[in-house]
Amino acid sequence: MSFGFRVTHTDGLARRGVLTTAHGPVDTPAFMPVGTQGAVKAITHRDLESIGAEILLSNTYHLYLRPGDDLIARRGGLHRFTGWTGPILTDSGGYQVFSLAPLRKITEEGVTFQSHLDGATVKFTPERVVEIQEALGSDISMPLDEPIPFPLDPKIARLALDRTHAWWKRSRSTKTSLFGIIQGSISPELRKESAQIIAAADPPGFALGGFSMGEPAALMDEMVAYTAEFLPEAKPRYLMGVGMPRDILAAVRSGVDMFDCILPTRMGRTAMAFTSEGLLRLRNAKFARDERPLDPQCDGVCCGSYTRAYLRHCFAVDEMLGPKLLSLHNVRYYGRLMKSIRQAIREGTLGKVTA
Amino acid sequence: MSFGFRVTHTDGLARRGVLTTAHGPVDTPAFMPVGTQGAVKAITHRDLESIGAEILLSNTYHLYLRPGDDLIARRGGLHRFTGWTGPILTDSGGYQVFSLAPLRKITEEGVTFQSHLDGATVKFTPERVVEIQEALGSDISMPLDEPIPFPLDPKIARLALDRTHAWWKRSRSTKTSLFGIIQGSISPELRKESAQIIAAADPPGFALGGFSMGEPAALMDEMVAYTAEFLPEAKPRYLMGVGMPRDILAAVRSGVDMFDCILPTRMGRTAMAFTSEGLLRLRNAKFARDERPLDPQCDGVCCGSYTRAYLRHCFAVDEMLGPKLLSLHNVRYYGRLMKSIRQAIREGTLGKVTA
Repeated sequence: MSFGFRVTHTDGLARRGVLTTAHGPVDTPAFMPVGTQGAVKAITHRDLESIGAEILLSNTYHLYLRPGDDLIARRGGLHRFTGWTGPILTDSGGYQVFSLAPLRKITEEGVTFQSHLDGATVKFTPERVVEIQEALGSDISMPLDEPIPFPLDPKIARLALDRTHAWWKRSRSTKTSLFGIIQGSISPELRKESAQIIAAADPPGFALGGFSMGEPAALMDEMVAYTAEFLPEAKPRYLMGVGMPRDILAAVRSGVDMFDCILPTRMGRTAMAFTSEGLLRLRNAKFARDERPLDPQCDGVCCGSYTRAYLRHCFAVDEMLGPKLLSLHNVRYYGRLMKSIRQAIREGTLGKVTA
Repeated sequence: MSFGFRVTHTDGLARRGVLTTAHGPVDTPAFMPVGTQGAVKAITHRDLESIGAEILLSNTYHLYLRPGDDLIARRGGLHRFTGWTGPILTDSGGYQVFSLAPLRKITEEGVTFQSHLDGATVKFTPERVVEIQEALGSDISMPLDEPIPFPLDPKIARLALDRTHAWWKRSRSTKTSLFGIIQGSISPELRKESAQIIAAADPPGFALGGFSMGEPAALMDEMVAYTAEFLPEAKPRYLMGVGMPRDILAAVRSGVDMFDCILPTRMGRTAMAFTSEGLLRLRNAKFARDERPLDPQCDGVCCGSYTRAYLRHCFAVDEMLGPKLLSLHNVRYYGRLMKSIRQAIREGTLGKVTA
């Protein structure tokens, strides 16, 4: 395990930096495409590399259920199994337990739940989820935590946060870089407390969890900025599961370094494209006669070879080329956004970037 | 419209040649990937070019229904609409009318049917299907014909063949290269008669229709070889909708120049891969622990980046990367087969090629 982080430029609170991992460096601020089940939906590794992705996120919950961490470990780990040679960050699986699995039961020890696939009973403890991520061979791993629903119920939030902190104290890894996760929903007091408790263990990086749970975007911006103030400057900061381009830009301005989100692929699969003209809904009938590329400012394969009329046709007749091309385009859009953000920070012009 | 065909080498009855079209040359014997609805399922044009595809087939029936030949014509034709800049061959739509559309009624004038999508009544006549293909801007078009079911019922075969020939006499195009289609099922007499009637109009190429309808492969080989004997040597010969690699190799040995088939993409989508070890069924549990590439002899992106274990995982968890990678691999497999066939004919070693 070799892990490091270095800030090379700043622009206000925003940071341009480099993460170093055993599987290569990552320029930050970075967006991590999501390969839920070890595959970024419809996109090959070669395509990912061609659009500048340097690090992938994968989901412990899904990989634990299928094909299983033991099978992946015997294949030599997630890198060898998937063929992705760059860095991989895995989540703890906790988020999916709370969003997907029926009949879950939370105790001090951990969370017991039924697989959403076959109903089998599974127990995740803070120790077990780290073991699973070590078996996967993740470069960066996450501890088990308990998300707090929005809107905030102070009593539930208190209990959940205490449990998250108790679990964190049992979470240690010698084989992966285990980040700490700060929860606390939209409560400044809880966020501050959580940041201080997590930071006390001096983890190699900090994740900001529990955002994009339905709170207004401006409130998220504010709470992210507030939380970041309590984090050591020398460590990377990762805003989990966020978000739309505007959310990412706002968080970068508050000093966040890493992001992941399913939006570019999920929206691509449902015919929605991020472009320099805004979000286009390709199923709209008006595109049937639109011979322009999706985004005239994009130099990707989708915009270089296909018209809006053709892409709409692919969705209208259920050709999987449509979801594939729009997923690729959207991930590329995010990649270009991050690149322009990094360049702006280096040049001290982040204030001029829009998203 | 500029169309030509030149045989450059022979090996027995097999021919190595070049088709010339307004959208570029095609080395023959050639395999045409099938873009039913104007898209080869899950595969980008760039990927197609990278695996050596020079000509695509697209389906008039599907494009007529969605998005419509008028819309495509107003977009500048199928080449501009799809972004595929190489040659395109379209079928007449007749085959889909007979296999997909309910409530069809055949008369001397043509065939009336209901759209399988919305039940709308549509009439295809020999004149209309050529007009549609002209509107699409196909390089090579096909006349309306009536396939003969297998097993052969002599009375039905006689009626269908007479209708096919009557329709052929009304089929003319000044804007595309309209091939003639020879029918006759497994009857040597009917095949010979059909070849002579179709050849009388001196079309720019000949299609052999009505094969791979359920007859034994050896019988198909025999009838293809028999029919080819009656065709002028200077014109290209296209065996429609065929087939497995062995079928293609046998037909090449009888002097056939062009092929199309949905098998590489359809089988790829259902987890079956053509390899130098034979057909692999990736859903088989034994592949969960198989760390070899799909085909160690293949230099494609699928075999270069992924293991059998990972591909199986993609199918097991319904990741669309699985169908995409196997489709690409299979089309590439066919492309490599055709390349090795062309090289062998040039070198006079076709007898040593196996498939």
